[in-house]
Amino acid sequence: MSIVQSLSEIVGPSHVLTGADCARWASDWTGGYQAQPLAVVRPASRDEVSAILRLASQHRLPVVPVSGNTGLVGGGLADGAVMLSVERMNRIRDIRPDARIATVEAGVVVAALDAAAEEHGLTFPLSFGAAGSAMIGGVLSTNAGGANVLRYGNTRDLCLGLEVVLADGRVLDLMTALHKNNSGLDLRNLMIGAEGQLGIITAAVMKLHPRPVQQATAMVAMSSLDRAPDLLNALQDASGGAVVAFEFMPRSFIEGHLAVIPDAREPFDAPHPVNLLVEMAATRDSGLSDVMEQVLSDWMEREEVTDAVIAQNEAQRREMWARREAAAEIAFHRKPFIDTDIAVPLNRVADYLRDIEPLLRAIDPDCSGLSVAHLGDGNIHYTCFPSRDDRQLKSALRAQIDQLAIEMGGTFSAEHGVGLSKLAPMARFKDPVALEMMRAVKQAFDPLGILNPGKTLPARN
Amino acid sequence: MSIVQSLSEIVGPSHVLTGADCARWASDWTGGYQAQPLAVVRPASRDEVSAILRLASQHRLPVVPVSGNTGLVGGGLADGAVMLSVERMNRIRDIRPDARIATVEAGVVVAALDAAAEEHGLTFPLSFGAAGSAMIGGVLSTNAGGANVLRYGNTRDLCLGLEVVLADGRVLDLMTALHKNNSGLDLRNLMIGAEGQLGIITAAVMKLHPRPVQQATAMVAMSSLDRAPDLLNALQDASGGAVVAFEFMPRSFIEGHLAVIPDAREPFDAPHPVNLLVEMAATRDSGLSDVMEQVLSDWMEREEVTDAVIAQNEAQRREMWARREAAAEIAFHRKPFIDTDIAVPLNRVADYLRDIEPLLRAIDPDCSGLSVAHLGDGNIHYTCFPSRDDRQLKSALRAQIDQLAIEMGGTFSAEHGVGLSKLAPMARFKDPVALEMMRAVKQAFDPLGILNPGKTLPARN
Repeated sequence: MSIVQSLSEIVGPSHVLTGADCARWASDWTGGYQAQPLAVVRPASRDEVSAILRLASQHRLPVVPVSGNTGLVGGGLADGAVMLSVERMNRIRDIRPDARIATVEAGVVVAALDAAAEEHGLTFPLSFGAAGSAMIGGVLSTNAGGANVLRYGNTRDLCLGLEVVLADGRVLDLMTALHKNNSGLDLRNLMIGAEGQLGIITAAVMKLHPRPVQQATAMVAMSSLDRAPDLLNALQDASGGAVVAFEFMPRSFIEGHLAVIPDAREPFDAPHPVNLLVEMAATRDSGLSDVMEQVLSDWMEREEVTDAVIAQNEAQRREMWARREAAAEIAFHRKPFIDTDIAVPLNRVADYLRDIEPLLRAIDPDCSGLSVAHLGDGNIHYTCFPSRDDRQLKSALRAQIDQLAIEMGGTFSAEHGVGLSKLAPMARFKDPVALEMMRAVKQAFDPLGILNPGKTLPARN
Repeated sequence: MSIVQSLSEIVGPSHVLTGADCARWASDWTGGYQAQPLAVVRPASRDEVSAILRLASQHRLPVVPVSGNTGLVGGGLADGAVMLSVERMNRIRDIRPDARIATVEAGVVVAALDAAAEEHGLTFPLSFGAAGSAMIGGVLSTNAGGANVLRYGNTRDLCLGLEVVLADGRVLDLMTALHKNNSGLDLRNLMIGAEGQLGIITAAVMKLHPRPVQQATAMVAMSSLDRAPDLLNALQDASGGAVVAFEFMPRSFIEGHLAVIPDAREPFDAPHPVNLLVEMAATRDSGLSDVMEQVLSDWMEREEVTDAVIAQNEAQRREMWARREAAAEIAFHRKPFIDTDIAVPLNRVADYLRDIEPLLRAIDPDCSGLSVAHLGDGNIHYTCFPSRDDRQLKSALRAQIDQLAIEMGGTFSAEHGVGLSKLAPMARFKDPVALEMMRAVKQAFDPLGILNPGKTLPARN
């Protein structure tokens, strides 16, 4: 019996796709990667996932899990592999408002979970551009971040329990809803962010938070980024820690937005080099707009803030967020591009952006750059546009972007994951003992090496 | 050369203790365990730790790390083993108030870190009775919890970076200060709570939080525990989530306190079955006392709260906390005792405490119980006093305490760790696939099995 026939016996023939039917999964969201899966298989349950992995183990078939397919690092590429899509496992099994938890399957869309939580006055606060497509399995496997990490943490901080199918089909049951549960080694956090290397997440217990009843959202212009971290601290101090987002967009980002997105508008009457999107939120009426206005007018009087607009209604707020969330469209509009995902200590972001440009121009005098940053946690998405589509040139530019982050105490991989695109800096910058131990853990969980092979962990030299 | 001589060459002869000089480390804090280490060795640096572990690997010597020796589960017992004390590695290397982080060595005392943070208007918020003795290495290795988990999380949530010496002496460098750093498998969280099974933590980057400038602390009496979770939600809603502690003490705890602690006083004029210690805190003036008073008087009018006292000054607040923090003295005063560390979903605490007593009396009609609970996260420290010091009887009682927690969707091990005392429930209740994978990870990190052997992970059947 062929593999496709065996897979069909597990999930039914209509849920095994091959050839042209796989087109949707044959490239990633950036368009930078292309691959043809052997087949896409869409199980409906944990037990079907388990049967697929037992089959794959028998035949030593590579298996690549996929959920929303919104990754940016090639982590979901499946050249010649069985692509296991969890999209049919999309039930919200249970929401318990008193305990503020949701039990969900891996195929639940992030925005759908938030919408379901909203009915109970709660929120699932993970916030990023692709939240309308990304699914729980994917955000857990990459420990996705986004704009609200400042307040709510990464996906890791939103997870209490996990159900995982291991490479050989065994089910690892870590489905607790407890906030304290120190019973042996922490396999849950090991699975989160493992990019499908150690098992396939099929369900999870996620934390929900009280939904803010009050928000204050503003676009803020500054002449320089240097004092922006102090503005964040001033807003936090004045509001008792109510800031949920603190996002930086340089003038070039605003111009990109105007050029690429229909109906895009200037955020201010005049252009400014530094544009911040600031949002505060509270679960009771705390006069946040007054706090925001007070701090911003103090800073304007001192001429440290050059302009500011506070959203007066939800439509204005949505427009501010739509601009920020268009980052991928703006960055990937022009080709060739190199997209990166670095982080530096947040007081070094201004230094980084000042220092990186001359370093890149020394490699490619005609390159240009576009940045957007989660300034509240030092995470910069720096996109470099090289002057020509040359593999070696692109490598050199990327290496420089990573190198400077490392020199500033930062990382080459903040929130998107390693996948394929960051294997080189993993090999170059990661502590070699850490790499060795990651490989040892991988070997313990997946001795045949069938789970998402060739990603995340660079091969030994 | 003898082992003691070899160890002396690494750390100097005055830092290798043997025989009677080891007395301080020969029993744990509960007095329930006794063991004689081969030697206690006190390295001053990571490199000395590394040399000790290389030596231990060569000779296949068991090594048990210890810091404050305040554990309650026998995790630091070192019968015939080399006990590696990190107490001399007690430097706070760096505090960066702008980034709200501290870089510390494993031997820094928890309360000392908080005191150092206070100088910068910050706090290291881990709060439990032994915080004046417990050290960073220990709280990381056990993922310690305590009374403020509700607000600040467990130790895991307070750690950004780690330095760990592996069993063979290699140094695993995970010393990042970044809030976003998704670069490969999460070895940091794997090390946290691993109870010394995978390596010895020598340094860490810890998060600090803004120090509250306003607190409202109260003792609250209720006639029944059933509505206490709703009181917590009411206080959270009214204060915008400012509750930092929500601790339950039954009348028997109050009586134990009066009997055991000199100068102990009644919390209220009359005795009450349910006594809660509630604390709210804010980093700006938020009228917390008014909020507390308003909620409590509403509940008193409805006769759901029967009495309440709000601390009027720091001395009154300290007295409230001193009562709660005397839990170990109260529980361990009478012998024999069985101390436990269960958690259930927080809406089940009242059910648990109602149901457990008849179940235990069915086993031992003359036993009695004493509980104290971190009600905000469902964590109950239930101490059972059996009628006689009989090993089999104590086992049966302990098994029943754990069993009921499991039946209610809880855990037998919330925050103290597994150590020696919870090996039986680990074998009985933990997912068998999880146990297998924990053993596989242990094997990958410590193939010779020299690190804290015989603890945490029960042997295969």
